[in-house]
Amino acid sequence: MPKLWNETIEAHRRAVRDATLETTVALVAEHGLASVTMSQIAKETGIGRATLYKYFPDVESILIAWHERHVAAHLEHLTHVRDEAGTPGEGLEAVLYAYARIMHGRRQHTELAALVHRGEHLTHAQQHLHGLIRDVIAEAATAGEVRDDIAADELAGYCLHALGAAGGLPSESAVGRLVDVTLAGLRPAP
Amino acid sequence: MPKLWNETIEAHRRAVRDATLETTVALVAEHGLASVTMSQIAKETGIGRATLYKYFPDVESILIAWHERHVAAHLEHLTHVRDEAGTPGEGLEAVLYAYARIMHGRRQHTELAALVHRGEHLTHAQQHLHGLIRDVIAEAATAGEVRDDIAADELAGYCLHALGAAGGLPSESAVGRLVDVTLAGLRPAP
Repeated sequence: MPKLWNETIEAHRRAVRDATLETTVALVAEHGLASVTMSQIAKETGIGRATLYKYFPDVESILIAWHERHVAAHLEHLTHVRDEAGTPGEGLEAVLYAYARIMHGRRQHTELAALVHRGEHLTHAQQHLHGLIRDVIAEAATAGEVRDDIAADELAGYCLHALGAAGGLPSESAVGRLVDVTLAGLRPAP
Repeated sequence: MPKLWNETIEAHRRAVRDATLETTVALVAEHGLASVTMSQIAKETGIGRATLYKYFPDVESILIAWHERHVAAHLEHLTHVRDEAGTPGEGLEAVLYAYARIMHGRRQHTELAALVHRGEHLTHAQQHLHGLIRDVIAEAATAGEVRDDIAADELAGYCLHALGAAGGLPSESAVGRLVDVTLAGLRPAP
């Protein structure tokens, strides 16, 4: 088959897949996990039930695929934020702030969270995230903007945990203060 | 009944209860949650099955009672650590270090953790813990040893999350460094 045709099929598949993910998450958010069926998802997505089963075996796998895409988008965003920043110190601040905002904006959908947060893809994403933060910290340490007497790896664990507090914060300004305090912990001793 | 007799009964009940909790946790740790039965627990504790049912309706409730006692002991320990310390700044450091050590020493028993960490008692204990840390921070802020431009409540959330990183650390000295970094985040701006 010509290359163009393959690309068209690929684009079509991606569109069906994306539509299925969006529909499913919206249905689960509205009606709860237990009451959403594959037939309902197919109908709402506007595809046949048999077609849907060619993409996904069950509702759970759709939700995990959605979460995988969601997490990948966050990682991409953080990488972009880092690349856009000026000095290593600015990069660190921008990335930590972006991460805190992600934590702050997380949907508090516990049923969904319990399901998707046990997937293997998450372990991989967490390692990726940890590596990204570690590298940004290491660069800032080399530039003298972060203490270099503690391994960047340990400092990354500290940052990720500390910024997890953003999930329970009431406002954007509280998130800003949390990032400030977390960054202060990283500064070289005077 | 005379007071002494009541006290004897009370002490006996507590002893049976404590023995049951210890036996159950040991059995679950050894054989897994699914394979431990009430009969087994009664036999290993050295009490009758009917007696056991007077104390607890099922295995799950025993584990939750155990965890409640476990968490209460941690809170008591932290309160004691705070009371023993000298200045507010020393109190803060001692309490944060004690908490980080608790996080570091937690059993990595995921099956058990998933069961006991959803109890209502935990929400209560977390509020208690948050309040304890908040008060220690507020005292240290009044003494000028902690920044006072951010509410102690927010700083407590930061500390508890940051020190959660202790769970994944490989050594006591790494835990000490984590406490150092977390404390550095709290210091007043120079």
